Amino acid sequence: MRAALAAADGVRGLTSPNPPVGCVILDVEGRTVAVGATEPPGGPHAEVVALAEAGPAARGGTAVVTLEPCGHAGRTGPCAQALLDAGIARVVHAVTDPNPRAAGGSETLRAGGVEVHAGLLADEVASGSLRAWMHFVRTGRPHVTWKYAATVDGRSAAVDGTSKWISSETSRAEVHRVRAAMDAMIVGTGTVLSDDPQLTARTPDGALADRQPLRVVVGDTSVPAHARVLDDSADTLLLAHAPPEGVLTDLAARGVVDVLLEGGPSLAGAFVAAGCVDRVLGYIAPALLGTGTAALGDAGVGSISQAWWLRIEETTMSGPDVRISAVPVRADDPSAVR
Amino acid sequence: MRAALAAADGVRGLTSPNPPVGCVILDVEGRTVAVGATEPPGGPHAEVVALAEAGPAARGGTAVVTLEPCGHAGRTGPCAQALLDAGIARVVHAVTDPNPRAAGGSETLRAGGVEVHAGLLADEVASGSLRAWMHFVRTGRPHVTWKYAATVDGRSAAVDGTSKWISSETSRAEVHRVRAAMDAMIVGTGTVLSDDPQLTARTPDGALADRQPLRVVVGDTSVPAHARVLDDSADTLLLAHAPPEGVLTDLAARGVVDVLLEGGPSLAGAFVAAGCVDRVLGYIAPALLGTGTAALGDAGVGSISQAWWLRIEETTMSGPDVRISAVPVRADDPSAVR
Repeated sequence: MRAALAAADGVRGLTSPNPPVGCVILDVEGRTVAVGATEPPGGPHAEVVALAEAGPAARGGTAVVTLEPCGHAGRTGPCAQALLDAGIARVVHAVTDPNPRAAGGSETLRAGGVEVHAGLLADEVASGSLRAWMHFVRTGRPHVTWKYAATVDGRSAAVDGTSKWISSETSRAEVHRVRAAMDAMIVGTGTVLSDDPQLTARTPDGALADRQPLRVVVGDTSVPAHARVLDDSADTLLLAHAPPEGVLTDLAARGVVDVLLEGGPSLAGAFVAAGCVDRVLGYIAPALLGTGTAALGDAGVGSISQAWWLRIEETTMSGPDVRISAVPVRADDPSAVR
Repeated sequence: MRAALAAADGVRGLTSPNPPVGCVILDVEGRTVAVGATEPPGGPHAEVVALAEAGPAARGGTAVVTLEPCGHAGRTGPCAQALLDAGIARVVHAVTDPNPRAAGGSETLRAGGVEVHAGLLADEVASGSLRAWMHFVRTGRPHVTWKYAATVDGRSAAVDGTSKWISSETSRAEVHRVRAAMDAMIVGTGTVLSDDPQLTARTPDGALADRQPLRVVVGDTSVPAHARVLDDSADTLLLAHAPPEGVLTDLAARGVVDVLLEGGPSLAGAFVAAGCVDRVLGYIAPALLGTGTAALGDAGVGSISQAWWLRIEETTMSGPDVRISAVPVRADDPSAVR
């Protein structure tokens, strides 16, 4: 299953609106004979990729998959049937498919005499490679990660607007890896006008990553024609007059599942206020500024009782910075009780 | 040495201006026969306390001490001589005494035929129980820990001034333990007027801790007579018109070695700007506010190149909060290079 997870992680950002899935085929002796991952939309799912690689060695073997094999015939035919046709004897999957249209794969397999085991490393997959897609299936909206870089006192730029470099080289390289696994990145027109970012995913040597997420610019102010975000290194979508919910509806219709919200503070505040942030990813630089731009703008909070509470998922060092990953807690979550 | 460290930790806040030291005596067979720690000023040092407990069992034994035994005759006579008189054969100490008046203990011991080993767990002691005292000896100024509680976006109160409770019960209990080990706590008159804190160290059941740090209120505004910080639960010092350096000089003269700066943002900014913060202790609550009071006020930073850079010493969870401990990096520190 670890190998299947790694295969799934390798195709994050490439498969939307389909889920990034990994599949490992073991032969009848338990030896790994093939590893597959979901191909871009229109291409085969992970199971079919792995079965093609395994060939006759799959007969009597085991398929280890990060997601329950689909039972419906979409663009590519149901994977459950493909596993049956290949003579697979046993299927071990992590997450059970939450998509009612796709579900039923296990029933098909069991009806065909295949032993099916569900739940192996399910939490890890659900909070990792399949997190955005599961959110998308559940809510119909893309999963939004608000990423920010700030000092320990919460400033993302000094009072004169300078911010190079608040976060370390290590953190900046990691952000490029995060970007490369996303379907889209969102910034506000304010950030475009003040920082003129190119909004691309780059490799450590500075080259453009193979695949670039859609660049989305939100706001009423017009974007100058020479803005770097409009260059030809990636596609760009301009959305004026759009509240966060509207932006996400628009992106969902375009098959965008996983979104990185890169700020600035006003746009981040609007998304938080609208309940449209599903994960907070903060790079906290070991520095104090005291004044300057706050990482987060007005989020509709007038009193401490209206604070947006989170649960810290993970705290790690990113070079000299502290990296915090947190998710909103719902009012009915016990950890929300203070 | 672990037992000696624990003994030293147990008397932090009780010994200033003397260092909080722990001493363990092993008999000639290597069995622990006594554990001692520095008593309040005027009382015996750790070695003398431990020797008294050990009695004749110390003869031919080993003394394990967190600090090199003093060689000078202060209020209590030199510990090196006491160890010689007790017939100790071997001394193992962590930190070498940086105080030129007190140093020379090892020479005295060696001259008396005692085997002396230095440096065991020295880093741990130097960054732990003896940190403030070593800073005091080196600089002549008390060691200042700036403690703050803020949301992940750096706010210490909502826009209407409410802040109960940004930090968790776990963090608040820990802050009371931190307070109990300090010689003094500093707040500004602004905090006294807005929050009316009592500024005491309390046990988990809400009772006053046995010993209370000096309460120091800094600022030009007069403090109302009914302010809780003026109640009889602890001593209070009011310092008007005092810049941070002046406050610390005054406190040093009173034998204050270890200080907790509790804010608010203006006072914290002034201390940071004056280079008078030696450690930053942040309790980051998993919440977003967007607006409200920033944890840190103006610290004299106009541009990112003037940021006050830190090195993260430790990041741990404190209940649901992230606790960050960081120390300033000097310009000549390689980790200060961005």
